[in-house]
Amino acid sequence: MRAPIALVGIGKIARDQHVPALAASPDWALAATVSRHGRVEGVDAFERMVAFLAARPDVGAVSLALPPQPRFAHAEAALKAGRHVMLEKPPGQTLAEVHALERLARERGLTLYATWHSRMGKGVAAARDWLAGRAIRGGRITWMEDVRHWHPGQDWVFEPGGMGVFDPGINALSVLTAILPEPVHLIEADLDVPANRQTPIAARLLFTGGIAMELDWLFPGEPLWDIEIETDGGTLLLREGGNRLFVNGEEQEGSAEGEYPALYRRFAELVRAGECEVDLSPMVHVADALTLGRRRVVDRFDF
Amino acid sequence: MRAPIALVGIGKIARDQHVPALAASPDWALAATVSRHGRVEGVDAFERMVAFLAARPDVGAVSLALPPQPRFAHAEAALKAGRHVMLEKPPGQTLAEVHALERLARERGLTLYATWHSRMGKGVAAARDWLAGRAIRGGRITWMEDVRHWHPGQDWVFEPGGMGVFDPGINALSVLTAILPEPVHLIEADLDVPANRQTPIAARLLFTGGIAMELDWLFPGEPLWDIEIETDGGTLLLREGGNRLFVNGEEQEGSAEGEYPALYRRFAELVRAGECEVDLSPMVHVADALTLGRRRVVDRFDF
Repeated sequence: MRAPIALVGIGKIARDQHVPALAASPDWALAATVSRHGRVEGVDAFERMVAFLAARPDVGAVSLALPPQPRFAHAEAALKAGRHVMLEKPPGQTLAEVHALERLARERGLTLYATWHSRMGKGVAAARDWLAGRAIRGGRITWMEDVRHWHPGQDWVFEPGGMGVFDPGINALSVLTAILPEPVHLIEADLDVPANRQTPIAARLLFTGGIAMELDWLFPGEPLWDIEIETDGGTLLLREGGNRLFVNGEEQEGSAEGEYPALYRRFAELVRAGECEVDLSPMVHVADALTLGRRRVVDRFDF
Repeated sequence: MRAPIALVGIGKIARDQHVPALAASPDWALAATVSRHGRVEGVDAFERMVAFLAARPDVGAVSLALPPQPRFAHAEAALKAGRHVMLEKPPGQTLAEVHALERLARERGLTLYATWHSRMGKGVAAARDWLAGRAIRGGRITWMEDVRHWHPGQDWVFEPGGMGVFDPGINALSVLTAILPEPVHLIEADLDVPANRQTPIAARLLFTGGIAMELDWLFPGEPLWDIEIETDGGTLLLREGGNRLFVNGEEQEGSAEGEYPALYRRFAELVRAGECEVDLSPMVHVADALTLGRRRVVDRFDF
């Protein structure tokens, strides 16, 4: 029996990932969409959240794939109407607004699931298991891609709250915080901010444990999404955003499940168990980088 | 029986507040200082933390009055050496480093106390009690002072991690988060950053609940440290950084205890109870403002 779910925000990520994952889900059936511009063929479509909430009390769960700026108001409305809520990453514009959503969900006995899709990369669980109990000697995170390819014309990523290059970079941090046996924290950061923008287009970070991170959003061609960790038992390398795992140069078998199918499976488990899952540690590292980072003005950026 | 305590960082705040509060404390006796430059007449003085920790195992508690940048390393060393730790505000440079300290303290059964001195202002507890159960209609926080008077020549406040005008502003946020019956979160912020500096010298914030905040570090003369909250039962006004309380224009009786004596009393209570007190909500609001705030370059600032 597949439970009805609504998808809010029908943009690139919804079409590329959420709609196919829901179509194949054993747990969920896409029953409605809420979007000012997009819709999904054959699915009950609403332009506004309030209209959806009033018309479809039978839909007990909502997945939000909007940009972070309008996400809070939609999540709050859904929780206040008694619906379980799944949030795309990052879960909000501010830490305090996500804390507020979590309080609201727990008060009402609803599930709030702050997803981190890269944590469901095929090599991540095996990487965490391999690192458990090992001593970390250092690490290098390399997260480089072409913003014009991945966010064509999306000015919101350079607006306050859009996080700039930390929009992809938070994926790396979501994996790092999932696989390390002990948490790390930021020591220093350099942020390159285009003269006509508010958020960084490149950054260099140093964490405790000798873990360095380099982010670049002007990297042409195939992206580099690599995390390399040196340990007392050798070197672990996660490539392709957590989807391929190498230990001492040898590729390891990973999970067969894709990222978004795994997220929707997990959301169904949380709803059945009556639990919340809201781990903000990747977002804390970004807030720390934007608080502690030294800003340098670099060349203008235009799409 | 007064327990021995060490004071680390003998600068302006230590001399103005910590040393007099400890001299009058029924709970604590100042047994050692750690500071490269300062000392206190008649008290065992160390230049380095490691020397103090080795020489004085009898001193079971440490109070850190350093600037935020070097605070983590000193706190970590003290906790690893089995000492209870009290932190001046803000408790660190990053949220993640304070989370790390809290884990360390809890693992070892030690007290970590992240202090917010303005929460001990004489009107704060009465303000919280008066607001409990009332509906908030809006509010105005006005936090204006002269940085040249309060931080003469202290360039670290304009360095990354020094937080700029949020160094005093976090005092207002520590009071706000202590008195409101429900938490709020940031909606938007404008930050004025001097052309030659990294952190804001002025800011305007808007929180949920209609609470506006204005911070200015170039305000001459007597500081304005006011929090005004409109409710369904009238207007509450806290002046002088939480130390005077007015309800509908009439001044109310407050606590007789000063801020720093109250902090040291609380630290003693926490140590006796074997508890930690680490509320990072004021720091979360600052991280949110620095994440979400729109930056504007303003005139150079030199001391």
